[in-house]
Amino acid sequence: MSDVLVQAVEPDEYAGRLRRVQSSMADRGLGALVVTDPANLFYLTGYDAWSFYMPQCLVVPADGEPQFFARAMDAAGAQFTSNLPAEQIHGYPEDLVHRPDAHPFDWIAAQARPLIPSDADVGFEGDSHFFSARSYLALAAGLPTNRLVNAELVNWVRLVKSPYELGQLRIAGRIAEQTMRTALDQLCPGRRQCDVVAEILAAQAIGTPEHGGTYPAVVPMLPSGDAAGTPHLTWSDRPFQSGEATTIELAGVFGRYHAPLARTVMLGEPPRRLAETAKIVAEGMQATLAAIRPGVSGHAVHAAFNAVITAYGLTKESRIGYSIGIGYPPDWGERTVSLRPGEQTELAAGMAFHVILGMWMDGWGYELSESVVVTPTGAERLTGLPQELTIRR
Amino acid sequence: MSDVLVQAVEPDEYAGRLRRVQSSMADRGLGALVVTDPANLFYLTGYDAWSFYMPQCLVVPADGEPQFFARAMDAAGAQFTSNLPAEQIHGYPEDLVHRPDAHPFDWIAAQARPLIPSDADVGFEGDSHFFSARSYLALAAGLPTNRLVNAELVNWVRLVKSPYELGQLRIAGRIAEQTMRTALDQLCPGRRQCDVVAEILAAQAIGTPEHGGTYPAVVPMLPSGDAAGTPHLTWSDRPFQSGEATTIELAGVFGRYHAPLARTVMLGEPPRRLAETAKIVAEGMQATLAAIRPGVSGHAVHAAFNAVITAYGLTKESRIGYSIGIGYPPDWGERTVSLRPGEQTELAAGMAFHVILGMWMDGWGYELSESVVVTPTGAERLTGLPQELTIRR
Repeated sequence: MSDVLVQAVEPDEYAGRLRRVQSSMADRGLGALVVTDPANLFYLTGYDAWSFYMPQCLVVPADGEPQFFARAMDAAGAQFTSNLPAEQIHGYPEDLVHRPDAHPFDWIAAQARPLIPSDADVGFEGDSHFFSARSYLALAAGLPTNRLVNAELVNWVRLVKSPYELGQLRIAGRIAEQTMRTALDQLCPGRRQCDVVAEILAAQAIGTPEHGGTYPAVVPMLPSGDAAGTPHLTWSDRPFQSGEATTIELAGVFGRYHAPLARTVMLGEPPRRLAETAKIVAEGMQATLAAIRPGVSGHAVHAAFNAVITAYGLTKESRIGYSIGIGYPPDWGERTVSLRPGEQTELAAGMAFHVILGMWMDGWGYELSESVVVTPTGAERLTGLPQELTIRR
Repeated sequence: MSDVLVQAVEPDEYAGRLRRVQSSMADRGLGALVVTDPANLFYLTGYDAWSFYMPQCLVVPADGEPQFFARAMDAAGAQFTSNLPAEQIHGYPEDLVHRPDAHPFDWIAAQARPLIPSDADVGFEGDSHFFSARSYLALAAGLPTNRLVNAELVNWVRLVKSPYELGQLRIAGRIAEQTMRTALDQLCPGRRQCDVVAEILAAQAIGTPEHGGTYPAVVPMLPSGDAAGTPHLTWSDRPFQSGEATTIELAGVFGRYHAPLARTVMLGEPPRRLAETAKIVAEGMQATLAAIRPGVSGHAVHAAFNAVITAYGLTKESRIGYSIGIGYPPDWGERTVSLRPGEQTELAAGMAFHVILGMWMDGWGYELSESVVVTPTGAERLTGLPQELTIRR
């Protein structure tokens, strides 16, 4: 048995989430909210399927029960994975799929109209990846008397995690740690990138004997050599080479909760600039984690990191972290709080962050990251690997 | 050495693609096209990175050179993977990321405005997954004198593949066949779903000794038992059980080209209804593949399948196939031609389809699929597995 306890979802957990969303809607004066981000759908109903490539949404009224709309074949699947009763699940006809002259959101808007006061403001998720321009235009045309307003408020309700959610994140952290150990062990000169990735993908899926893993929102990334100077390049079948450094970024995932993790491995003797950067970044990580506690702003956490690196003459343009929790492709971030200059949101116990210190230089790079939960007194790391450059000679 | 030859991209392949897109734009009277689908970006420029979770686009003028806009850190990566010269790659500032009061498409529209005649119609990709409602609204506000029109025309230009692309698809087919063999071999009673998925994911990444695989646009799906009656449910850590059927849908992927493949495996003696359905669907597949040749409509291909199953008293609501090629999460389809009633597009040599015969019944299901290329005389299968129910006793 695992010594990480799986805490069950409390019966009223979904009810509490819906209540907080409807309370936030009331604060914004919204008569309805159209939820399209798959992570928000999962948060509010438990619905979990690879159906988000087709239009689908949950319409949350100001009060009363939410209604789920999806392609007919996926509406059937919603009976398996969501907490919604059958009468709140509605399937649109198959002949609306991929047509230039009609759109599923025409149908959805027509179904939703009776549920929404004709003069109400209706919220939509403006940067949800799966609410397309045509979906927006069809919704707007189908609700001609309503004003549509950008309202990504479910993401903000997700910011502070429940005890159940923190338990899921801790299990995800175990899977992340084990997967990164596999990656650092398996990477060696002459082996193709794709073969090392195969080991990483397998470790992510296997998880632990007690808790199987699931798919990450982002595939493992491990640019090496020159390409390590830029993030977000995916693997090839080129072999790893002696004398090259590789940055590895991956996540452990359990029940859609993500614990991302990044490390850097050097094959052979590290160049002095890389070894020195690794030490500075480790010191920066210590300062960053020490700064994390309830009541401190994202701005202040960033400043603690920045004070360390500027003392060594280094600079970093991009943010050093963002809130995490539930994730679906293509992103495991919550799109809310960032650790960066100007971020005035104060941290609170139960928030979770991926603190990622990526130094992308011209032709080389170094990455070190930790996934942490904010506790009443500080930061709890979800993984336990050394915060150093791994060197394989 | 592989006996599948990797044909190199001809130097003028990208130029020809751009020319065909600009010709299609001229037919539609478009002064510019804003391309946001990652598959279309890859098709036109070779750009390939996991950066599509942030706003990015290629602005294609009516004539002249396209301009690529992405987050600054990803613009750097575009130098590695795209065919664009540095002066056609533009990075937006990091402080535009995830802000409620400003949006990257504000900046992109301001940069693009001088490139676009003030009275021109501007095309956008209305169902591209990564062109969000906020992106659309910011683009529209930033081009106030232009009319924005839905124009997913790059997808249609992709429909007929070049010899180079057909070579990529054939390699993807080899990887798909080998991965499915792994899945059918490894699935057995008592083994957790996630552990079988680990083998599938590893096989997809390893590919062949000559050609490493890469990530699929859709994760492997293998619903079993009751859940096999619905598509698109992803795996869990529940063990497979004797007496249950599992449908497996996965893809082999090479250089972003996808060959999807589906089979069904029964652990133990199959129920009579399942064995009979398998035979009918195999006959339907033969009729479908026999109907595929240049000049035949998608409607007629569907009719050939339907004639077989209706003779046995079966019906199927959803389409039986769709065009394939380049894929990025969350979908490996091209969103153009479907094999379904009413589809009047005529097939042509060089098109490629995933013919998927999914029979989702109440509480059980059967899937059989083939990825095929349309040749001058018929259909070429990309994989060679038997078209039958796999039974493991």
